[in-house]
Amino acid sequence: MNPAAGTPRTWPADSVGLVTPHRIDIDAPLTLDCGRTLPRHQLMVETYGRLDAAADNAVLVCHALSGDHHAAGYHSPDNRKPGWWEHYIGPGKPIDTHRFFVVCPNNLGGCRGSTGPTSIDPDSGRAWGPDFPLVTVHDWVGSQALLADALGIDRWAAVVGGSLGGMQALQWAIQHPQRLRHAVVIAAAPRLSAQNIAFNEIARQAILSDPEFHAGRYAEYGTRPERGLKLARMLGHITYLSDTAMREKFGRLRRDSGQAYGFNYDVEFEVESYLRHQGASFVERFDANTYLLMTKALDYFDPAREAGGDLATALHPATARFLVIAFAGDWRFAPERSREIVQALVRVGKRVSYAEIGSRFGHDDFLMPNAEYRRVLGAYLARVAEEAGT
Amino acid sequence: MNPAAGTPRTWPADSVGLVTPHRIDIDAPLTLDCGRTLPRHQLMVETYGRLDAAADNAVLVCHALSGDHHAAGYHSPDNRKPGWWEHYIGPGKPIDTHRFFVVCPNNLGGCRGSTGPTSIDPDSGRAWGPDFPLVTVHDWVGSQALLADALGIDRWAAVVGGSLGGMQALQWAIQHPQRLRHAVVIAAAPRLSAQNIAFNEIARQAILSDPEFHAGRYAEYGTRPERGLKLARMLGHITYLSDTAMREKFGRLRRDSGQAYGFNYDVEFEVESYLRHQGASFVERFDANTYLLMTKALDYFDPAREAGGDLATALHPATARFLVIAFAGDWRFAPERSREIVQALVRVGKRVSYAEIGSRFGHDDFLMPNAEYRRVLGAYLARVAEEAGT
Repeated sequence: MNPAAGTPRTWPADSVGLVTPHRIDIDAPLTLDCGRTLPRHQLMVETYGRLDAAADNAVLVCHALSGDHHAAGYHSPDNRKPGWWEHYIGPGKPIDTHRFFVVCPNNLGGCRGSTGPTSIDPDSGRAWGPDFPLVTVHDWVGSQALLADALGIDRWAAVVGGSLGGMQALQWAIQHPQRLRHAVVIAAAPRLSAQNIAFNEIARQAILSDPEFHAGRYAEYGTRPERGLKLARMLGHITYLSDTAMREKFGRLRRDSGQAYGFNYDVEFEVESYLRHQGASFVERFDANTYLLMTKALDYFDPAREAGGDLATALHPATARFLVIAFAGDWRFAPERSREIVQALVRVGKRVSYAEIGSRFGHDDFLMPNAEYRRVLGAYLARVAEEAGT
Repeated sequence: MNPAAGTPRTWPADSVGLVTPHRIDIDAPLTLDCGRTLPRHQLMVETYGRLDAAADNAVLVCHALSGDHHAAGYHSPDNRKPGWWEHYIGPGKPIDTHRFFVVCPNNLGGCRGSTGPTSIDPDSGRAWGPDFPLVTVHDWVGSQALLADALGIDRWAAVVGGSLGGMQALQWAIQHPQRLRHAVVIAAAPRLSAQNIAFNEIARQAILSDPEFHAGRYAEYGTRPERGLKLARMLGHITYLSDTAMREKFGRLRRDSGQAYGFNYDVEFEVESYLRHQGASFVERFDANTYLLMTKALDYFDPAREAGGDLATALHPATARFLVIAFAGDWRFAPERSREIVQALVRVGKRVSYAEIGSRFGHDDFLMPNAEYRRVLGAYLARVAEEAGT
């Protein structure tokens, strides 16, 4: 499958193939939860499939903590790594690009082309860096609603996301009830637990205490807080896999070290090698200020908070129908957390389907190939497509 | 209870009261698992109670990752904080100092007075620092056996420990079967899981990548890798409490911040405040090189490894009777891990009692007051004392 130079690469038949992101100007002002107003901003966006004449078949895909707009397909013929949700977006796949017009933006505050800490603050003429406002899930939904306006989409057929992306789907149903028909909330939680916050806090402290952080102005010093960001990412990975999955994936010793212990701090367990690799590759592609604000958006997400602490009351305005999916081995956002969402929806008479999928990995399952998950998501979205008449 | 200056403080009746640690010279050579030999070493030790004439009533208490020899009582009348196992060691307590002679050493490689990275290497005349050998649980038991010799104790009535201390109790039963009558293994595991190792690895990377680490020679630079050690400790604390306990203990927001979010990276959740405090106080009292080697001793502990991977085979030589205690909410070393020990013991016909205690905290329960735990431990050790005729 590796194409010779100059010859067009053959993509798998069920891939959207070569894709090109577009930067979209959002010229309407957006007032953020922190009180500041962005007069305009830009979102880097990928779209797959075609918007039908009635603009009835649009699906918004929301990304998670370290995700971006590149959800499916390939950026170049040489690019071996497809988008982060390639298993589930494409022709004939659950998010079927023959039927849906799929929109995936890099969120406001991101570091992959949307307005965020690495972009230029027009007021100062220099990169925002740490001065970029801390954005919330509520702010992202506001920004995505402006994006929908820009694209001529009044109502999404579905808003879909996993993890922090699932929180955005839930928030959409509360914040703009008339603008989506379905919310698909995967491997999410109605708010973080103290333990979830604890993990985020240690990740932040790793970055903030890195001497190369320079109060967030590291770019001006020609450096990056790589050590801190690497630690933060390693720590995240602990929560993405279940203990069982780690045992099955890594066992204890490295295959090449056999039975002998090294009596030093070099890598000798497979899991050490995996974490160091994950950390090292992440710092090549991600910005520390964005990582910080993404963790804070997670910590702050708590739709029940403005409804007297009651999630059902918060969900009362929703008119969307819901699909909630959890993975049995997910200990970051365990199935109990998804069931809290389901129970709150049921209490206020909303229509909700719930599936708990047998787990191979843990939280990471929402990204991984899994026949049961594919079937559940595919069956639900096929009905969504039928409603849209596609 | 706060005594006026100059007046003797009144200790609680069930405390051992004022205690003084002693540094004990171990003049016999100790060959370590790494292949190096220490011609002699010193252990800082506390003892409580009196050794009877037959030397039949001695209990060895083994400490965990960040513990030391100060298990009970107070170091000065002004000292408000007793030893780490004050709840369970003292007159009339489960480890009853009216009946037992209790011995608690700071382990070899420690940083509280025993030979370790902060002590002087006689060969070089400077602190060992990173050149101190990586020691194992097997090495500690070897060192503790030499301590028993020095104290005139042929056989312990019991070897008792929680967490990494419990691993030492288990190793004692394998390594010196004739030298203990009982092994009390609390909140332990027969070896670390990949997830356990992952946590240790991130803690190590936090320390090793701290620019103040200076390849372990930080003392010579007049500094310490405080940031890294602080992160390591914060990370440890995540594993010491269950998610439920964290929720009950901390909830989400700080009481003094009310409902308003700060939109910055200051402390605003109780759990953040707790972790930062734990991290900051730990770096005042602990050495980074010791922390590194303690985590590695945990990673390396795997008694089944030299018995073809079979724990039961490894336990075959044991003659001790066993009490194994686990805590329901412990996710660092979950009850399943204790049951692996129990099942292996049963398979080779050993005498073992097992108790799974209702949990309030998680792994930390082994240190905390808990009536059920106290009853189980007390009842078992009362029988041990009766056997010893005390």
